[in-house]
Amino acid sequence: MTQNIRFALPQSEIPTHWYNILSDLPEPMAPPLHPGTKQPVSLADMTAIFPENLVMQEMSTERWIEIPDPVREVYALWRPTPLLRAVRLERALQTPAHIYYKYEGVNPVGSHKPNTAVAQAYYNKIAGVKRLATETGAGQWGSSLAMACQMFGLECQVYMVRVSYNQKPYRKLLMQTWGATVFPSPSDQTEFGRKVLAEDPECPGSLGMAISEAIEDTVKTPHTKYALGSVLNHVCLHQTVIGQEAIKQMALAGEYPDVVIGCAGGGSNFAGIGFPFVRNNLVDKRTTRIVAVEPASCASLTQGELRYDFGDTAMTTPLMMMYTLGHDFMPPKIHAGGLRYHGMAPAVSHLRKLGLIDAVACPQTKVFESGILFARTEGIIPAPEPAHAIAVAIDEAIKARETGEKKVILFNLCGHGMLDLPSYDAFLAGNLTD
Amino acid sequence: MTQNIRFALPQSEIPTHWYNILSDLPEPMAPPLHPGTKQPVSLADMTAIFPENLVMQEMSTERWIEIPDPVREVYALWRPTPLLRAVRLERALQTPAHIYYKYEGVNPVGSHKPNTAVAQAYYNKIAGVKRLATETGAGQWGSSLAMACQMFGLECQVYMVRVSYNQKPYRKLLMQTWGATVFPSPSDQTEFGRKVLAEDPECPGSLGMAISEAIEDTVKTPHTKYALGSVLNHVCLHQTVIGQEAIKQMALAGEYPDVVIGCAGGGSNFAGIGFPFVRNNLVDKRTTRIVAVEPASCASLTQGELRYDFGDTAMTTPLMMMYTLGHDFMPPKIHAGGLRYHGMAPAVSHLRKLGLIDAVACPQTKVFESGILFARTEGIIPAPEPAHAIAVAIDEAIKARETGEKKVILFNLCGHGMLDLPSYDAFLAGNLTD
Repeated sequence: MTQNIRFALPQSEIPTHWYNILSDLPEPMAPPLHPGTKQPVSLADMTAIFPENLVMQEMSTERWIEIPDPVREVYALWRPTPLLRAVRLERALQTPAHIYYKYEGVNPVGSHKPNTAVAQAYYNKIAGVKRLATETGAGQWGSSLAMACQMFGLECQVYMVRVSYNQKPYRKLLMQTWGATVFPSPSDQTEFGRKVLAEDPECPGSLGMAISEAIEDTVKTPHTKYALGSVLNHVCLHQTVIGQEAIKQMALAGEYPDVVIGCAGGGSNFAGIGFPFVRNNLVDKRTTRIVAVEPASCASLTQGELRYDFGDTAMTTPLMMMYTLGHDFMPPKIHAGGLRYHGMAPAVSHLRKLGLIDAVACPQTKVFESGILFARTEGIIPAPEPAHAIAVAIDEAIKARETGEKKVILFNLCGHGMLDLPSYDAFLAGNLTD
Repeated sequence: MTQNIRFALPQSEIPTHWYNILSDLPEPMAPPLHPGTKQPVSLADMTAIFPENLVMQEMSTERWIEIPDPVREVYALWRPTPLLRAVRLERALQTPAHIYYKYEGVNPVGSHKPNTAVAQAYYNKIAGVKRLATETGAGQWGSSLAMACQMFGLECQVYMVRVSYNQKPYRKLLMQTWGATVFPSPSDQTEFGRKVLAEDPECPGSLGMAISEAIEDTVKTPHTKYALGSVLNHVCLHQTVIGQEAIKQMALAGEYPDVVIGCAGGGSNFAGIGFPFVRNNLVDKRTTRIVAVEPASCASLTQGELRYDFGDTAMTTPLMMMYTLGHDFMPPKIHAGGLRYHGMAPAVSHLRKLGLIDAVACPQTKVFESGILFARTEGIIPAPEPAHAIAVAIDEAIKARETGEKKVILFNLCGHGMLDLPSYDAFLAGNLTD
């Protein structure tokens, strides 16, 4: 009889509602401000780039928001995702800790991003939108939106951060196979892109720049709206299916986590695994430590400032109260493209300010070492982004070995690294530094 | 309430035994022959390259062979794999047929190959072997064995068909990340490889050539055995977990397939989905049509001859009774690298001879069209190999639309195409012909 290490749920256990953390905050969040008037943004401001149904969701404080059937039907293609206990990693670390991971890489894109892409495509579709414009860093978000648009019959235009466009040709091909149009950003498609290129033709791009291009495209093209893959409340909201499923699966395993870990770039995957556990801390008086892990080279939560800042480089988005390195911060070319963002989701920032979550920064070589140890024990080659979470899970497991504590650790393996192999190659060849 | 489209099984439903079709054959298979004496090969002949426990399994006629616990423990990292009903594809085809697919792409490698790689690594390990040598075409098998060797602490040396080595750099990186050593074949590592390169330095290689190199490496290197990813009886045997799970999952869906479809290169994925259904036809008098789909450009079952032939180009393997295009057949550079093999598994060939299975050949452009339709409806981008099975499933569904028949179709989606995207790119750019 082999040990139970895989905790599967049937399709009927896909959550019926998303969990909205805004409903449980001990102190309300500061509102986003209009960049010109510095007054709280109005519905009209927001609907210039988003459909009204998503703007209402962005501002909602309803606790449970029902997941529409057409969205759950697409979720059923891969959800509920598995939760596994990493017994091989535990053995390699000789730790008394139990390490669990929720694996979001089983869908066609290979990451958690489709959870919100599908929802956003659906809401845009029923709002009568014909075309979505977006930006993408590592390509996970762009390919998720490309697939989601294909499923709901929308056109999709993606501005992909140039350094990732060049480093990750497969991600671009993935988007094209799902029928999207993809340009490297900064591009010659927008006024902003042309201006940046005129100043620096070799500019590697950043998420902030690509957002500016996608927003410019949106306001200038008929029947087009903008879609964002992280940061905003409604995006964090859609990801909460992850944590809700994980809570049920941990119960199947007969345990409850002492520590929950997620990597954080814009914050959506961290929100997905973390927010439902934050709720359990607040409501059920649980005492789980909930940790966001960011790259040392782009560490908004641990090295940034909590203040109003723009979401993009061209200063066109509303001002958001968040931990930020500054909207003109140019992150170094680290390989975890999905974590190269100057700010942090306002909801995640707010929880950090209230002391409800913890944050740690991790250097790149430690991240890849952890990713390789995981691949060689558990099989799955993690994307560099969740390898940040793995690094901290391993730290926790080693601490438990030293103290003898039977700690229960859960992290979100938000995607696999099949299309990130050149980064592993560079690491194995000794070409990566911190 | 959304429709049930996903049929999941818990870990406890991983099959406990592999199903051996040799036990149910109405007529025994012709034995493999020694290439020199032309007499049936002896145990001693076979143990020159395989460990004795696997040779015994190769020759066994026991019906159910127990799966060792350490193998089931690794299977549990991704098994049971999901079975889904392709309702979106059905809608796109406007067919009354129900289309189901078993999805083997959810493991770290992304194909069915780990089912046997893990078993082979385990049996070699307990036989005291230290190092395995093998060949790989598209790279699915090589990466599966690399991962399996890593899990059981064996070294792994892979000879990868040169055309795939160049077309699929990510597969090579995958093997290296799991710690294997990889050479393009023909290579300068073996006498046979050097001889081929001297005659044709541009030789694109073939599976037959790579097998010759791996076998030469095996017999010349201490503590080394050889591992084959398809063709042999024990390989087909290990894959039968697929069909066994599918039978249980079809029962959950309340249906039984009228047609079962698998692509066939060496034959192992087809055997995996098909053999348990062949048994049900033989034993339970079911009348399911079981169809092997091969590429028109390398069509052993439909255009080859049933006769004794070598498994490799250098004529070093035993002679096997199989449908073959000739051991010196040089397949064109089609993109389904995993189907570029001159022969067909003797067990599959035997079933074909007895009329127990059917075979169809499919041209390349039709295969990619089908793959794209599947990706744009169901999400998953299939590897080019299972896109052959999809093409025939679509044909069957269209026939059902024309006749109005509510046919139940099941195919094996044996792997995803994330690392085959350049092939889709070539197809979308109009650069692929039949």
